[in-house]
Amino acid sequence: MTRRERLRAETAAEIKSVALKLMYEGGPGAISLRAIAREMGMTAGAIYGYFDTRDDLITALIADLYNAFADTLDAARAAEPEDDPAARIIAHGLAFRRWAIDYPAEFRLVYGDPLPDYQPPEQSPAIEAEQRLCKGVADMVAAAWPRAAAMYAKDDFSWDDFTSVLAGLIREWHPELPPAGVALCLRVWGRLHGLVALEVYGHLRPHVTDPTKHYLAELHDLVRSLGL
Amino acid sequence: MTRRERLRAETAAEIKSVALKLMYEGGPGAISLRAIAREMGMTAGAIYGYFDTRDDLITALIADLYNAFADTLDAARAAEPEDDPAARIIAHGLAFRRWAIDYPAEFRLVYGDPLPDYQPPEQSPAIEAEQRLCKGVADMVAAAWPRAAAMYAKDDFSWDDFTSVLAGLIREWHPELPPAGVALCLRVWGRLHGLVALEVYGHLRPHVTDPTKHYLAELHDLVRSLGL
Repeated sequence: MTRRERLRAETAAEIKSVALKLMYEGGPGAISLRAIAREMGMTAGAIYGYFDTRDDLITALIADLYNAFADTLDAARAAEPEDDPAARIIAHGLAFRRWAIDYPAEFRLVYGDPLPDYQPPEQSPAIEAEQRLCKGVADMVAAAWPRAAAMYAKDDFSWDDFTSVLAGLIREWHPELPPAGVALCLRVWGRLHGLVALEVYGHLRPHVTDPTKHYLAELHDLVRSLGL
Repeated sequence: MTRRERLRAETAAEIKSVALKLMYEGGPGAISLRAIAREMGMTAGAIYGYFDTRDDLITALIADLYNAFADTLDAARAAEPEDDPAARIIAHGLAFRRWAIDYPAEFRLVYGDPLPDYQPPEQSPAIEAEQRLCKGVADMVAAAWPRAAAMYAKDDFSWDDFTSVLAGLIREWHPELPPAGVALCLRVWGRLHGLVALEVYGHLRPHVTDPTKHYLAELHDLVRSLGL
């Protein structure tokens, strides 16, 4: 990178971090190029040299978050031995919860509502990271499948139960996984998500003293339900 | 009710329904007494005769929603025989999903973020409905407990793992339920919530052709995991 390119990249990163700060303070509706320019002491004109529209900025922000999120989960799984699928599921789950609790605004951008009036581009710029997140769950279920099949292989699912995009991806990653295994991926995803979503949105805290303990118990249940 | 009281109640109800409509159209930030007055052809002054502040209106709205939501779930469970806890869990789950999908804006008010700048009153006006929702889950787990205990009774939980409010309520409703059973209530709640939250926020649809089928499979897994 030339010095000029480096400065440009730094400014773009600062714009994104100010956008997140505004979102933390005032909700997603508070992100505007004008407000960011004010905050950074730039002219509104100068900021348009970095992002043409607020939506372009949000798109870049979402792509960054998805990538950081996917990196975190991939690293958590990879830190456990490949031949210990239970340990990988638990590590993945705990890293997911940690990320969601540490970055609640980012969690909302990924799993909550799109911002008011935000028009995402036709091809999501986070498509690669979205697919990595999806593959992470598929990898966990595929690793558990030799044991889990005894319980789930007879579930009544066919490839028609999934969109062709999902079916195509899973067949490429894990050709051994039948439709019942793919359906199990989606349910595992839902189970990992449930308590964490309740916690992020403030519904679990009024009931428990240590949310991690309850989530960890859920992860152990999940692992057990997969026959691990 | 006198005619005057009836008219007053009707107007209050109309204000709330316009508030929901504004929220559907423009997100939660779009709810303002001024905008509602405009929509209804009232003066801003007249509307303050019904609700002192926007937050009072939101509070009334949330209380209504919680009550309607709790009524729906209570009715769904009650329609199944008391001695068939599995049928009650499945009916509850399907009614929960139906409500969430049919009333996504209401789902966000109950389970999503508080509205921007909304200050809830110290004592939630929906406390009675919140407790009914909580009791619904506790009832289902208590009914399953004679079978589920074999799997979960040895889980390492004590009353200290819950806030005293929750512990007090559950001991009143189901004195037979030990701490491990209460912890199970929270995990069941999380499981019921997971796939539905993903679906409401638009994350499931891109992957599946029929979300109900997948959620129903999750409910059957849940029932099985409780030993039913």
